[in-house]
Amino acid sequence: MPYYIGDVIQDEKKLVARTPERFRETGIEVMTHTRVTGVDTAKGLVELDGRPALNYDYLVFATGASAFVPDIPGLDLPDVFSLRNLEDAIAIKERIKEINARRVVVVGAGFIGLEMCEALTEAGIAVTLIHKDPLPANRWDPSLSSMMSEELKRHGVNFVSSTSVSGIEKGTGASLCVRTSRGEFEADLVLMAIGVRPNVALAGSIGLKIGETGAISVNFAQRTSIENIYAVGDCCESFHRVSRRWVNIPLGDIANKQGRVAGRNIGGRPLNFDGVVGAQSFRLFGLECASTGLTEREAAAAGFSPASNITWGNTMAPALGARKIGLKLVCDRATRRLLGAQAVGAAGTVGRIDVLSVALWNGMDLDQVGYLDLAYAPPFSAAWDVIHNAAQALGRSL
Amino acid sequence: MPYYIGDVIQDEKKLVARTPERFRETGIEVMTHTRVTGVDTAKGLVELDGRPALNYDYLVFATGASAFVPDIPGLDLPDVFSLRNLEDAIAIKERIKEINARRVVVVGAGFIGLEMCEALTEAGIAVTLIHKDPLPANRWDPSLSSMMSEELKRHGVNFVSSTSVSGIEKGTGASLCVRTSRGEFEADLVLMAIGVRPNVALAGSIGLKIGETGAISVNFAQRTSIENIYAVGDCCESFHRVSRRWVNIPLGDIANKQGRVAGRNIGGRPLNFDGVVGAQSFRLFGLECASTGLTEREAAAAGFSPASNITWGNTMAPALGARKIGLKLVCDRATRRLLGAQAVGAAGTVGRIDVLSVALWNGMDLDQVGYLDLAYAPPFSAAWDVIHNAAQALGRSL
Repeated sequence: MPYYIGDVIQDEKKLVARTPERFRETGIEVMTHTRVTGVDTAKGLVELDGRPALNYDYLVFATGASAFVPDIPGLDLPDVFSLRNLEDAIAIKERIKEINARRVVVVGAGFIGLEMCEALTEAGIAVTLIHKDPLPANRWDPSLSSMMSEELKRHGVNFVSSTSVSGIEKGTGASLCVRTSRGEFEADLVLMAIGVRPNVALAGSIGLKIGETGAISVNFAQRTSIENIYAVGDCCESFHRVSRRWVNIPLGDIANKQGRVAGRNIGGRPLNFDGVVGAQSFRLFGLECASTGLTEREAAAAGFSPASNITWGNTMAPALGARKIGLKLVCDRATRRLLGAQAVGAAGTVGRIDVLSVALWNGMDLDQVGYLDLAYAPPFSAAWDVIHNAAQALGRSL
Repeated sequence: MPYYIGDVIQDEKKLVARTPERFRETGIEVMTHTRVTGVDTAKGLVELDGRPALNYDYLVFATGASAFVPDIPGLDLPDVFSLRNLEDAIAIKERIKEINARRVVVVGAGFIGLEMCEALTEAGIAVTLIHKDPLPANRWDPSLSSMMSEELKRHGVNFVSSTSVSGIEKGTGASLCVRTSRGEFEADLVLMAIGVRPNVALAGSIGLKIGETGAISVNFAQRTSIENIYAVGDCCESFHRVSRRWVNIPLGDIANKQGRVAGRNIGGRPLNFDGVVGAQSFRLFGLECASTGLTEREAAAAGFSPASNITWGNTMAPALGARKIGLKLVCDRATRRLLGAQAVGAAGTVGRIDVLSVALWNGMDLDQVGYLDLAYAPPFSAAWDVIHNAAQALGRSL
């Protein structure tokens, strides 16, 4: 998810146009609209569509991910979009203006779908959000994701849950009609947002090792299975410090870190990427939604015996006004080690997941987390923060 | 600082009255307005003023701290206050109403003084803040505390810096007149807020070891130098995990933790208090001010060779609007270990100091902090957060 709909509020076309220019100033040529048709790893050649091949000493795969689209009819109709990069966002925004779109159907209540609900609603557009599961953002516990569906309702988004889409057709009252297991929904524009998949076709075709996740396998230096070829960003794997497994988490901050690590290693100043703990967040109107580490299912898959609890608290001292936060902690029964956390709530929620991400990074257990020294003042927390209360309560329950 | 002016917005008198009552319901008697005149440690007796002595098996000192007042004339005049506990806050609030106070002079620009500036200004009172140093909150770097003095100005507080108070007299235009090295300031009410000192007279008189900080010395179980006597809260010391020294940091969250630890040990379920990293924060109108770990001076005193830098950033992605944050990091040159951090800025500042507090708790170095996995999304940070930028920049400078 390297792009955010909010990014395109600015004069985005200039931004896109300026990037190759700026690189050129530093002696780097950016070839846009240029397809790589093959790589000759023996000769160190990148073959291009309609241009002479390029020699390389080092090659970096930064092929990203693409929006996953299901196998249903109608996806090729005009005004059916997916959102993956800045160009997609620009196209959607322009098309909305052009046709004066009043109704949009969003398919999929993950990060992109939920963020788009906010952006579209704030642009005065009526949004219907269709999701296959009963609640949005299925990484979060139902008690937390139900806060999200309430927030959607409060802002006028029509959240249609437990519903599968079977196809898109031309509409009668609007240009499009989305057919689902719960009836038909007409729209001026449809956004498919059901997830992304790493782009690994080229990497696979030249024999780079693809990991179990379906993304390019790399080592801690971002090197692939071929010595002078590196991979960074959404197309490759990262080491998860909690599960001790390689994962593919398509997030912009991880991509940035990996890019810098690859550059350092190619440039001869070795640096390892020490991995991730799975920290992620998004905003949904007035709610901060964040999660880190493992879910119970992932924890069990990684060989732990997970236990969890949910704690309700406030992001400031009760005397100053209540601002609700719900925090779920996941731990290992045997070692009492923290394994993951999910939270939804008022301002200050993401900060708490960041705190717990550093705890995960360092392998802290519940007993330590329950007595962490945090910067207490009544506008920002109670003397016992929800983090302390949650860790102590989960510890007592084991 | 266990009480906050905001706490007294609620119906505080009921709260005070209810506390002994609630304890009584659980079989615990609270003797308010009862002075302890001595302790016979040989017989296990607490001697009371005007009441029979009490036997004890275990004794807990929770004598707190008192506002420090300088040796100047006029402190005994009516309407000269200090603020230490809920009763003080109630008295100040009532007196402000009673005399319809329009002008208040606050002496001392530490946490309490600054928080009171906000509370009084929001109550429509004209505030003059007199401080001995050029900038408020001298724990923070001048480039950060100057953000605080600007915030004071922006909200109409008259910040009188580098000024010493020589005495308080009866005024002519108002009931009081504060005499200083920079002239006289009239006021309806004066608040002395120049710091607190631990209350250790009784503890010292019975031979409890007092630490170098002037507070009661305890071990990790909160036990004092006498086996069945414990001490908790502002009157005792805590172990600082970064400096590896015992410190006295009078904060409500630390007091809460120590109280629980003492209770556990007395109750026969041993628990150690693993110490503090010095995390602290306060709000000043629209600013979040927070700090953790050691300042450069403290780091040098603790045997480190400190280096530091200041990094300016935003608490959200620039495309979504700029919200300034200034972050100072302190590290050890030899080990590259993080030693401390100070920050002032928009919402999200305290969360970042909390993140760095967990990093300090675990002894992380700059290279790890520079690549921490945090819950990035544009409304909450840039892809490289100010934490990453600061840690990497300081690392490069060594």
